[in-house]
Amino acid sequence: MRIEQLIRLIRENDFNGALISPGTNLYYLTGLYPNEVGERITLLVINADGGYHLLAPSLYESTIQDFPVTFWRDGENPYEKLAWILAEFELSSGRILIEDTMRADWLMNIMKLGNRNFEFYPLSLLMRKLRMRKEPKEIRLMEVAAKVADRVFEELLGSDLLGMREKELALKIEMFSRELSDGISFKPIVASGENGADPHHAPGDRRLRKGDMVILDYGAKWKGYCSDITRTVALGRPDEKLVEIYEIVREAQERAYKAVRAGIKAKDVDATARGTIGKAGYGKYFTHRTGHGLGLDVHEDPYIGPDGEVVLENGMAFTVEPGIYVPGLGGVRIEDDVAVIDGRGKRLTRANRELVVL
Amino acid sequence: MRIEQLIRLIRENDFNGALISPGTNLYYLTGLYPNEVGERITLLVINADGGYHLLAPSLYESTIQDFPVTFWRDGENPYEKLAWILAEFELSSGRILIEDTMRADWLMNIMKLGNRNFEFYPLSLLMRKLRMRKEPKEIRLMEVAAKVADRVFEELLGSDLLGMREKELALKIEMFSRELSDGISFKPIVASGENGADPHHAPGDRRLRKGDMVILDYGAKWKGYCSDITRTVALGRPDEKLVEIYEIVREAQERAYKAVRAGIKAKDVDATARGTIGKAGYGKYFTHRTGHGLGLDVHEDPYIGPDGEVVLENGMAFTVEPGIYVPGLGGVRIEDDVAVIDGRGKRLTRANRELVVL
Repeated sequence: MRIEQLIRLIRENDFNGALISPGTNLYYLTGLYPNEVGERITLLVINADGGYHLLAPSLYESTIQDFPVTFWRDGENPYEKLAWILAEFELSSGRILIEDTMRADWLMNIMKLGNRNFEFYPLSLLMRKLRMRKEPKEIRLMEVAAKVADRVFEELLGSDLLGMREKELALKIEMFSRELSDGISFKPIVASGENGADPHHAPGDRRLRKGDMVILDYGAKWKGYCSDITRTVALGRPDEKLVEIYEIVREAQERAYKAVRAGIKAKDVDATARGTIGKAGYGKYFTHRTGHGLGLDVHEDPYIGPDGEVVLENGMAFTVEPGIYVPGLGGVRIEDDVAVIDGRGKRLTRANRELVVL
Repeated sequence: MRIEQLIRLIRENDFNGALISPGTNLYYLTGLYPNEVGERITLLVINADGGYHLLAPSLYESTIQDFPVTFWRDGENPYEKLAWILAEFELSSGRILIEDTMRADWLMNIMKLGNRNFEFYPLSLLMRKLRMRKEPKEIRLMEVAAKVADRVFEELLGSDLLGMREKELALKIEMFSRELSDGISFKPIVASGENGADPHHAPGDRRLRKGDMVILDYGAKWKGYCSDITRTVALGRPDEKLVEIYEIVREAQERAYKAVRAGIKAKDVDATARGTIGKAGYGKYFTHRTGHGLGLDVHEDPYIGPDGEVVLENGMAFTVEPGIYVPGLGGVRIEDDVAVIDGRGKRLTRANRELVVL
């Protein structure tokens, strides 16, 4: 059981316990996914002795079963109940792990409990060790999510995109994805023409026109697991410079993918992509990491950047997504999801990476 | 300028400054809405002397302009840059306000900066004072968002819902809402039959059938401002007990709405709804607050619960949404958005509240 693995790590690393708010870590550990808790505190308390207990709003009384839980009602002070649980679990002080994405106001309230003699550490210190090394069944779910992304790209190639607004195309991508999966893993990015120079452009009212390079960055979820793909397509023959840039990015992505193997560091993969783009003279236009880990979260460990000290192992999964962004001109990004299997990189997304001129 | 109003409050309340991560407070203060920052730290630093400066990932270089900002690149340590900004702003210690929804890992890293002699307080202590009292132009935007919710309900009444799955209906609500607005304010809830007993039910595969009561809870956004409406409809004549429950909830909602006026406390509105339901013998099945404030966030101050000590004022806006949830049978909830205008409550959502039998 995954919660037992975490308890073992808590003990081995001399922590006293962990406080885990809802999110993918809680889901990974327990299968529980209380949705829409908002500002109502919901916490899994774990201690090094192997005890665990959930504090949850009474709204979830009918959905959380077969789990040790204390409910609190609107109007009650949940932190009083939390203080009792912490006392019971001998967690009124000590080295406590805190879910990284916990709301700061919950943490500020927790600081005032017990004897106020806490030392806090991010839970990801331990969870990353568990979640980075994916079980084969997790990779299989990621492959399904990746196949959905490929299928959506095929659908897009068969659609008439000319004249469509960026946000209309983003909605189309979302609808295709939702039909084929459990939902999107993030809001699709559609960045056309000069908007392509912004790596995180929010799709707007610009209409796609002839000569545009269009960056399409989207992903789907399957049983909680994410895919994340980027393809850049041309509408009619684009500017020669953009075609040149496309080929540089394609080569950088291919080389970085081929560099993936167990035993090297994440930063070695980044260096391969960055070196290729740098040699072509576009180094300063590659403004982000080469990739990020992928799983229950669309951004997780291992990060594939210049500071990526993680040694790649079988079962790790991440994106490889170099890009070049030239202000005033536009941008190109190509992204695949890659898992380390039998010591080598395996692409989970496999949609066509050649320049498609629609 | 709103940022100046906050600075005045910071001074009046003897704080040294504030650290504000992206979200609706940052948007309210600056108009900036960096989307999808994820784990990359992005912070507005404000000090009591009136200085302010943004720390942001270099990804946003092309979108954030005309604002005092320091960018950090992937591979750099953003907390070094933050330490410089804090030193510059004389915020290396003291009473610091922290955005409530900030990720706990950012806060844990901030704790280690400066001379580690911080006292942290939730930013909402001050922001709630500003945001609770809405300007007339904010209420106008909320009225547009509320009208969208009404229009969507009309569309639903004209649709054939029988046999549809809950999640298909949720998607239909989302699509109607997105066509008419800037997007949904939260994932629509569709809870049919016995699923209605869970106030936060996630729409699933259950098909709507004759005799069902169906809770529809959804909302739209207009220029950042949210609406939030619930209507409960019947598909064919439902169980007599559910019809009785419907009338109790309708009466409780009407009485609570009519109780709204400037000068009373939020808890007085709650007591009206709770009293009506209690007198009818269903008190223990009304398991949540009567309502919550609404604005840029779909849950904000003032909260309308038994502990609601806020004195209502003109410009405040909130939901009034009593409900009764009977395990094994189902549930009913009726929700409107209400603003205090000229001393009295004004419904922003106005869709039909009589029991509709489809």
